[in-house]
Amino acid sequence: MAASAPISKTIYLGAFVHSVSLQELEICPCGAIGVDEEGVIRFVERDVDGDTGRVYAKHEQWKGASVVRIQGKGFFFPGFIDTHTHAPQHPNTGLFGQTTLLSWLTTYTFPLEASLSSLPTAHRIYSNFVSRTLSHGTTTCAYYATIHVPATNLLASLCLARGQRALVGRVCMTTDMSPDYYRDASVASALRDSQASIDYIRAIDPHGAIVRPVVTPRFAPSCSTECLAALGALAHSTDSFIQTHISENTGEIALVRDLFPASDSYAAVYDAAHLLTPRTILAHAVHLSAAERKLVASRGAKIAHCPASNTALTSGCAPVRELLDAGLTIGLGTDVSGGFSPSILEECRQAIWASRFRAMCDGDAAKLTTGEVLYLATRGGAEVVGLEDKVGGFEVGMEWDAQMVRLGEVPVPVGLMGGDESEHEGDAADVDIAELANRGVDAPQTEPFRNGPVDVFGTESWDELVQKWVYSGDDRNTIAVWVRGRLVHQI
Amino acid sequence: MAASAPISKTIYLGAFVHSVSLQELEICPCGAIGVDEEGVIRFVERDVDGDTGRVYAKHEQWKGASVVRIQGKGFFFPGFIDTHTHAPQHPNTGLFGQTTLLSWLTTYTFPLEASLSSLPTAHRIYSNFVSRTLSHGTTTCAYYATIHVPATNLLASLCLARGQRALVGRVCMTTDMSPDYYRDASVASALRDSQASIDYIRAIDPHGAIVRPVVTPRFAPSCSTECLAALGALAHSTDSFIQTHISENTGEIALVRDLFPASDSYAAVYDAAHLLTPRTILAHAVHLSAAERKLVASRGAKIAHCPASNTALTSGCAPVRELLDAGLTIGLGTDVSGGFSPSILEECRQAIWASRFRAMCDGDAAKLTTGEVLYLATRGGAEVVGLEDKVGGFEVGMEWDAQMVRLGEVPVPVGLMGGDESEHEGDAADVDIAELANRGVDAPQTEPFRNGPVDVFGTESWDELVQKWVYSGDDRNTIAVWVRGRLVHQI
Repeated sequence: MAASAPISKTIYLGAFVHSVSLQELEICPCGAIGVDEEGVIRFVERDVDGDTGRVYAKHEQWKGASVVRIQGKGFFFPGFIDTHTHAPQHPNTGLFGQTTLLSWLTTYTFPLEASLSSLPTAHRIYSNFVSRTLSHGTTTCAYYATIHVPATNLLASLCLARGQRALVGRVCMTTDMSPDYYRDASVASALRDSQASIDYIRAIDPHGAIVRPVVTPRFAPSCSTECLAALGALAHSTDSFIQTHISENTGEIALVRDLFPASDSYAAVYDAAHLLTPRTILAHAVHLSAAERKLVASRGAKIAHCPASNTALTSGCAPVRELLDAGLTIGLGTDVSGGFSPSILEECRQAIWASRFRAMCDGDAAKLTTGEVLYLATRGGAEVVGLEDKVGGFEVGMEWDAQMVRLGEVPVPVGLMGGDESEHEGDAADVDIAELANRGVDAPQTEPFRNGPVDVFGTESWDELVQKWVYSGDDRNTIAVWVRGRLVHQI
Repeated sequence: MAASAPISKTIYLGAFVHSVSLQELEICPCGAIGVDEEGVIRFVERDVDGDTGRVYAKHEQWKGASVVRIQGKGFFFPGFIDTHTHAPQHPNTGLFGQTTLLSWLTTYTFPLEASLSSLPTAHRIYSNFVSRTLSHGTTTCAYYATIHVPATNLLASLCLARGQRALVGRVCMTTDMSPDYYRDASVASALRDSQASIDYIRAIDPHGAIVRPVVTPRFAPSCSTECLAALGALAHSTDSFIQTHISENTGEIALVRDLFPASDSYAAVYDAAHLLTPRTILAHAVHLSAAERKLVASRGAKIAHCPASNTALTSGCAPVRELLDAGLTIGLGTDVSGGFSPSILEECRQAIWASRFRAMCDGDAAKLTTGEVLYLATRGGAEVVGLEDKVGGFEVGMEWDAQMVRLGEVPVPVGLMGGDESEHEGDAADVDIAELANRGVDAPQTEPFRNGPVDVFGTESWDELVQKWVYSGDDRNTIAVWVRGRLVHQI
């Protein structure tokens, strides 16, 4: 498999950008990062200025290593971590209409997920979606699959084959919240099937270097108290991660209150089943009470913030600043297809927008900065999926999960001098404007923007280049992606 | 110039989609639209099913016409109307940081706009930006330029040369709201320069078929009472459109109250200067009072809704539903670089998100539908710029301002049967999943997504295809653009 093909010792030369902390984004214009045959970062130099000689002077034994150099305006950035998405729902990406969570599930989601009983259908969808997420620079992804064991196992195999780190979860849903045609037959069968999927994933990747299983109760309304408790026990006995949804939508919260009258809160339902652990990923957390935040934090459970989905389904704006202040660990999740994009870069923007909408009501402190959302997309996400020692930043001993970002430079129109503003003071009398305009004509324009959507004029600071990428960039700017030092996508 | 090159009589064959009204989006899967040598639509057929024979049976004299056929999954859609954007600010697209309107102006905007005193600088920026907006399917654009006459005139020349319909406005700003280094010297010189730009634009396009001038007081704080009144008179005497900003940000509104103590409201400031007319475009209108809405509506002035900008600068969420209910005419504006994208398709999404945030506070009635935002982006915008009889929809007698949209189809992985869900019930025992996964391997993936960001699986209804385009599409899906029947962009 591709994921086991050998790689060569490589020096990544050029600018790199990564989060040092929530508050600090490091931008290093003249970097060099040495990555060994295991994909482990062995050195990080900051003053190399594109000169391999300077690298060899410090690291003589790297003289024979491959060199990957940034071309044009660009930088290396850590691979994105998507802490919450539903791979089988990708054919519905962009389809949500005017629905909200519960009507969306029955209108769009259950019929589509049920179709993955067909393995060829699953193969087509999963193959496409893993390619898509990789193309957006997502090097680690926490996937929900469906209730089907073969399709779930196929997703894990695809991630392993493509070399994308993944948590892959067979979804459990035993109650009549789910339709007859798409539901676990019993708690016993749900457990058996979940165990089968865990066993398969452990068999194909025994050390969990690329793919790991994750126990996945869909959400409280889909599972009985008995089922939730059994899944808590399964996660414990198999030493697995857990992922589920919490407090996404007010109607859902009311439903949980009705279904679990003995529990004090939504979070308490999961806690009673031992599903709140340091290896639990809770998606959404839009409407958690102060007591629930405290409970979740005390258990060390983590949050997947999914603003695109929360906006599209009118679920609400998660109070990320308050959640951070409560000590919670947060990553970003695309939540396809509640979310309308497989891109974590888009999710960064959506997190910014949602925080601004909160700021319109709650004041400026709610605003997240560009650096903060990039932290959530990398270091925060790494912590959510338990990989904070391996990925999310560029440090010696961590692994090379990275993307090469290239930005497009705006050409100077033919026949005109460059943008030197002092020498060419405009004066209508001196210049034949119609002639100038004609020199700019190339109508119809044919593919003028091969280098993607970002326009760099050359006057930008490094900080501004990063801002332009975050607010205007897309997959066209992610020209290569590596996981553990292995190239997994390129354009 | 390109805009005057001859075009041939053409039949556009295939699906088309356009707004009939705010409530109704027509999707015609089997259309044919005949466009004559003047770019005027001469027939619209709805039951042709890709068969030119059926067209000729009804329109014999079109037998020699060119035929442009939709390839693959796609449709013709009216060109977008951008009712508010600032071309000189494009080098700052994506740069706004944590600023709000007034700090953003001084930090980012004035220094950049001042640099367009250099005509080569202006040429590089404007040439790039006109190409960008065309590539996103924008066939008509209401541009703010800068205070510089030569650069403003150059923008008009470029639009004419490229064939993009435009309103082009020299910006007027006489008060110390603007910095010393970038301000009109006096009201007299502002008037003289505005007149010069109007004269130039009228000279290069006497009938205003492509480019038209627009009187452009930046916003009330930039202009004295005297200046505003003089510009109102100038618009009247030159029979010009007017564009300005209104009620974008609460700090700005407070400033206007301080600067114009004799006026009852921000809208009243403009009204006193005779700047509220049926040919006035007011950008933003986020915080208009009920009395102001009534005043604006009574004058027939129009609104440019700019949600991307309003969100990025934390200005607020314009209450579009309420503005529509008040009888106001609304289009969409990208407001680059307060807005972070030159794409009206992105603006459609932003209008949806902003309306959902309003819905979270005000209830579901605030939610705009996909059809409604597409109306604002086309018919609504056309009415805002006074072209409702010519563009925005596909009707006999209107002109062919259109884009060809193509969506990407997801391939069936090699060696597997298609997505027939009934025949291949998954069963782990029957299928070698690792083998299936390996067949899906093409690592590293190389440019798998040439056809853009939208994934079509073949099960979508036509309505769903349109939804996928709106929520996942970008300029890669706009593969050709026409204005008045003339091809102005293609990929």
